[in-house]
Parts: sequence; structure tokens; C-alpha cells
Amino acid sequence: MPKKFSYQNLFSFSKEVFLKIGCNENDAKIAASSLLSADMRGVDSHGVARLSGYVRLWEVKRINPVPQIKIVHESPSTAVVDGDSGLGLVVAPYAMKVAINKAKNAGTGWVSVCNSNHFGIAGHHAMMALEHDMIGMAMTNASPLVAPTFSIDRLLGTNPIAVAIPAGSEHPFVADFATTTAANGKLEILQRKKMQTPDGWVQTKDGEPSNDANELKNGGALLPLGGDREHGSHKGYALGSIVDIFSAILSGANYGPWVPPFPAYVPMPENMPGKGIGHFFGAMRIDAFRPSDDFKSNMDNWIKRFKSSKTVKGESRVLIPGDTEREMEEIRKIEGIPLLQAVIDDLNSLADKFNIESIVND
Amino acid sequence: MPKKFSYQNLFSFSKEVFLKIGCNENDAKIAASSLLSADMRGVDSHGVARLSGYVRLWEVKRINPVPQIKIVHESPSTAVVDGDSGLGLVVAPYAMKVAINKAKNAGTGWVSVCNSNHFGIAGHHAMMALEHDMIGMAMTNASPLVAPTFSIDRLLGTNPIAVAIPAGSEHPFVADFATTTAANGKLEILQRKKMQTPDGWVQTKDGEPSNDANELKNGGALLPLGGDREHGSHKGYALGSIVDIFSAILSGANYGPWVPPFPAYVPMPENMPGKGIGHFFGAMRIDAFRPSDDFKSNMDNWIKRFKSSKTVKGESRVLIPGDTEREMEEIRKIEGIPLLQAVIDDLNSLADKFNIESIVND
Repeated sequence: MPKKFSYQNLFSFSKEVFLKIGCNENDAKIAASSLLSADMRGVDSHGVARLSGYVRLWEVKRINPVPQIKIVHESPSTAVVDGDSGLGLVVAPYAMKVAINKAKNAGTGWVSVCNSNHFGIAGHHAMMALEHDMIGMAMTNASPLVAPTFSIDRLLGTNPIAVAIPAGSEHPFVADFATTTAANGKLEILQRKKMQTPDGWVQTKDGEPSNDANELKNGGALLPLGGDREHGSHKGYALGSIVDIFSAILSGANYGPWVPPFPAYVPMPENMPGKGIGHFFGAMRIDAFRPSDDFKSNMDNWIKRFKSSKTVKGESRVLIPGDTEREMEEIRKIEGIPLLQAVIDDLNSLADKFNIESIVND
Repeated sequence: MPKKFSYQNLFSFSKEVFLKIGCNENDAKIAASSLLSADMRGVDSHGVARLSGYVRLWEVKRINPVPQIKIVHESPSTAVVDGDSGLGLVVAPYAMKVAINKAKNAGTGWVSVCNSNHFGIAGHHAMMALEHDMIGMAMTNASPLVAPTFSIDRLLGTNPIAVAIPAGSEHPFVADFATTTAANGKLEILQRKKMQTPDGWVQTKDGEPSNDANELKNGGALLPLGGDREHGSHKGYALGSIVDIFSAILSGANYGPWVPPFPAYVPMPENMPGKGIGHFFGAMRIDAFRPSDDFKSNMDNWIKRFKSSKTVKGESRVLIPGDTEREMEEIRKIEGIPLLQAVIDDLNSLADKFNIESIVND
């Protein structure tokens, strides 16, 4: 059984670390909150397991702990935000707020961001719109690990898309997914279990189909959603490309194979065409389209119909996007967040490095 | 060899048919232009092969040839358009124009449409934005043929998404794809050839995997992009759902299993919660984000890098979304549009019905 830690415990610890690298109190809180949302929602690859990765980016001066984040271009419904090399965990909520404020006046708000870093899970930022009775969207480009259809070269990241849609008495609809067949975190789970991948997840460095969960380390690539041409990989490739273009070409960030890698030890690409990594956010006010109550009662009806669908053999229910993560959050609020020993060791070495208290399991 | 027909020949014929069902001159031209764009771009399932289908919808009074299309709700960057049961081929260009005009003033424009019908190919409408130096988006819901992940019930349509992005010296990026593993048109091709489908395209009426291209006729379902859970079908299901919600719940159209079927002989669903089918359009002015020339030179760089990628064995190039359709259009401009004899017969029976000249191959 992995040891479990309370939200408050891991939040305080993460906040301390962000303070130690030089963030101010407010930014440290925002960063810890973005980070912990991943652990709470069960996206363990994007939570405190990555904290030391952010620290290493700060050590090589790729993260600026005191960024002057600002709007550099705008129209009534759009803005470009320059993140000044700040933590994506802080830049993203700033930009999402800009989108929400634009939407208050113009009906919708759309913000493309340059000069940022890894922003955690997309769903956390998209969900900021919900309390304003808005639909929220968040996407980001990422380190190039994905080969487009027919390509050997790794030209795209896992480029996730999140869309959060309010409902009435039902829970909100929250989709948050990589535009690849499987996200990198799923590969890591198979690596630990020494298991093979299903078909259509990865290819070798020569572009041959593979089931080796370690293929990326051998120079291979993740595959776009669909897997191969016959199963629609050109659609996953198009989606990942759209995320890349909206996030980086609209804003002036790096795109395609030039996106800076997350691991601090990986050298930066040559001839980078932009600044940092890029994100894209959207907010649409429901009542810019129709009265919010009408929308929500239809959403409830939609959700109820899908939930009550007959299931295939062996499955007990049809899920609504966001169900799994929300239910995980409810469990972890009560039971705490389980961490692998490797992650605990990693956090303890951060405690040593910064001379702060180690995390204690509850 | 199938017989070939010129664009002008099929355009004039289609326009005549639209005039005969009562459209005015301007609407008949717009409808014929929307319809023919599918034939030109090689999406043969959505072009003149569907003309008699539209006529049958008119015959059962589901298409109003003289609609009063209007904006029923708006904000600076949004609108809801009521299509008054008009041809989607006419309603969609109207709504896309509204989106473009909103974008001129507010930076972006977003239009959700109710009370419409089948709108042809999504890419045609999205591409209207290109000449305005805008990114265009178009999506629509459609007859329920798709089972969400773990579901037996058919609750979604093939719900396509199109995104058109301008470039500089390179051709524009134009993605246009169904959110299923394969569109219905691809199934029809296999049916004609009496071939099986690859895995992950369809399931039986009991939710078992199948390779029978006729499975939909037996009560089976198309599968969301990804095919099954292990290959990411929950992502295709989420995408199809987002298209449904943006198109129909934002506008007050029918959604999910209540979307009116395209074939006029299929009875309408009971307890329909909205009006007609729904679409969603977007336009984003490039210079609402950054100077258009900067954007375009980065797009050119992006496209050139992807085009020059090393390819997997047996493939000669990496395609940019839209390449295949644009190249087909260039060929068909010169060589004409090939039609199957069944389609020619269908058009000739329309000629008889309306007492107009038959199409003549060139």
C-alpha cells in the first residue's frame, strides 16, 4: 500500500518550495494550487511528482520566479499574454482570468500565451470559468514527442485540450485529454510494471509499429490519437497541430519541434523561432448565447440521457467526461493522496535541499 | 471508368433543382456552391450524391426553401442564429458571415445555430474566413449513429470539426474531420466493394466489436475516434460531445439522440428538446493577436518543417491537413468530377421529376 498524504500537507510543502525558489506568497499559493489539482484529480504524472522538475528548470534559469506577466496585444475579445518565463502554473491562471474578464464584456475571451513553461493539467485552468457561468477552454503545446501521420520525426507534443461546461443539478462536463492515443504518464505506468503497450501507442525511431513502453528512450515516438492512418491518426495529428498553432503561432511562442523540453537536462533546440512554450485559453459566457437556466436544464437532460445509456457487456455505466477525475477528487479529499516511494524520496530530497520540513504521511 | 462532369455543369444543375424546390436565385446559388465544394474536394459522399436527399427532406416539409434566417440573441462577439428550417447549405454561410462580421469589430466571432438542416462539408464554411485573414471554424451535430465509449445506444452523430488557418506563401492549413474513427462515407465505400472494416470502426447492436461494413443497418454503431477505451475512444467521445453541446445546447437545437435524421424516410425522434439540427461557427482575426505578416511567416515555417519531415517506409511525404482535398480540387478543375452510375441515375430522375435538362458528361 502506498503511503497517503493530505491535500493540506502537500499543498503547504509545495508552497514552501515555490517560496524557496523566489516566488512571492501569492504566486506560490497559485502554483501549489495548480499543481495539487493534478494529484487530487488522479493525474499523478502532473502533480507533486513533477515538483523537482520545476525546481531543476529554475536552477538552469529557464523559470523566472518573479515574472512580470503582461498583456502585449489585445482586442475586445482577445489578448496575447507574455509570461516572462514564469511558472506555467502561475501564468496560466493569470491568462485564464484575462479570458474570463474579456468574456464579461465581449461575450467571449480568447488568450494566446507566449514565453511560458509547463502549466500542469489543462482541466484545472479550464474549470476556472465554471463559477462565472462560462464554458472554459485550455490547451498547451509541449515537448516534441509525437510523430505526425507518416512521419518519423517527433514534431508535436502531447498537446492536451480541456473543455469545461457548466450544468445545472448535474456535475459539470469536464473533458481533459492529450491529443495522442495515450499520454506519456500512461507509458510510465507500463514501464514500471514492465508491460507492453497496446498497438497504436508508439513507433520505433525508424517509424515501425512497436509495443515497447520504453520506445521513447530509444528515439521512438508517441502516436497521434487514432494510432495509424487506417484508424484516423491524421485526425489526432490535425488536433495536436491546431493546439500548437493556437498556443504558439498566435502568440509568438515556440512551436513544433522547437518547443523547449520539460526535463532541464535536455538541451534546448537550435534556431528557436519564438519565446518559451505557448498556451491558449478561452471563456464563453453562456448568457451571451441564451439564458443560462435554459442552457443548464438542457445540459442536465443531455447528461442524464448519456448516463442512462445501455452499456456493453462487462461495463456498468457510461461515463460523462470528468466523472472519473471528480470521483477521484472526492475520494482523495477523504483518504488523502497516495504517493509512490520514489516520489516521496524525491520530495524529501527537495526538503533537504531547501532546508524545509519533510512531508509526513497521515 | 466513371463518367466525368464539369463543375459548371453540376453547379447549374444543382442550382436549377434548388430553384425548383422554391429557393430564390441567391439562395440557390449559395446552396449549389456549398454542395459542389464537396464534389470538388473529393468528399463525394457530401456532394451531388446527396442532392436527392435534400429534395426528399423538402418533400416531407422538413426543409423550408424560403427561410427567414435571423439572429435571435447576440453580444459583441457572439450570436445565436435561427435557421428557420432552411437548407443548412444556405444557413451555414449566413451564420459564418455573422461570425466574420463580429470578428471584424470584437476580434473574434462565435455563432451557434438552431433550426437548421445538413450543411454539407464543414471545411467549406470554415474556409470562408481565410480571405479575411481570419482563422475559421465550423462544426455541426448530425443524426445519431455513434455509440459513446461503453455504450450500446447511438447517442452522437459523426459531428465533424473543421479549422481553416491562413498561411503566407504556403497553402492554408485546412483540417476537416469527423470525430469518429471513420466517417460514414468510408463505410459506404467498403459496402460497395463488399469489404470488411478494420478493427475499431463499428460495433454490433449488442456492443460487440465487428468488422461488418453493414453493421449500421443491423442496428450497430459507429465508434468515436480511438475505437475503444484502450486506444482513446473516450477522447473521440468527448470531442463529439463538445461539438454537440456547442452546436445545439448553446443554440437551442436538438442534441444527442434527438437530432433529426438526414434520410427523410426515418421517423423523427420522440420528445425532441429543440429545433432542427445545430451548428457552431467561429472566426478569429489574426491581427487581434499579432501582426498578420508575423503570424503567416511562422505558419510558413511550421508547414515547411512538417512537409520536410522524414517519412516512414512506404510513404513519400508528410501531409499538411487540407493537402489531399486541395490537390483533388486542382485535378477536378481540369478533369471534371467523376460520378458513379448510381449517382448519375439519381440526378437524372431529379431532372425528370422537375422537368429540367439532364446532366451531360463532358
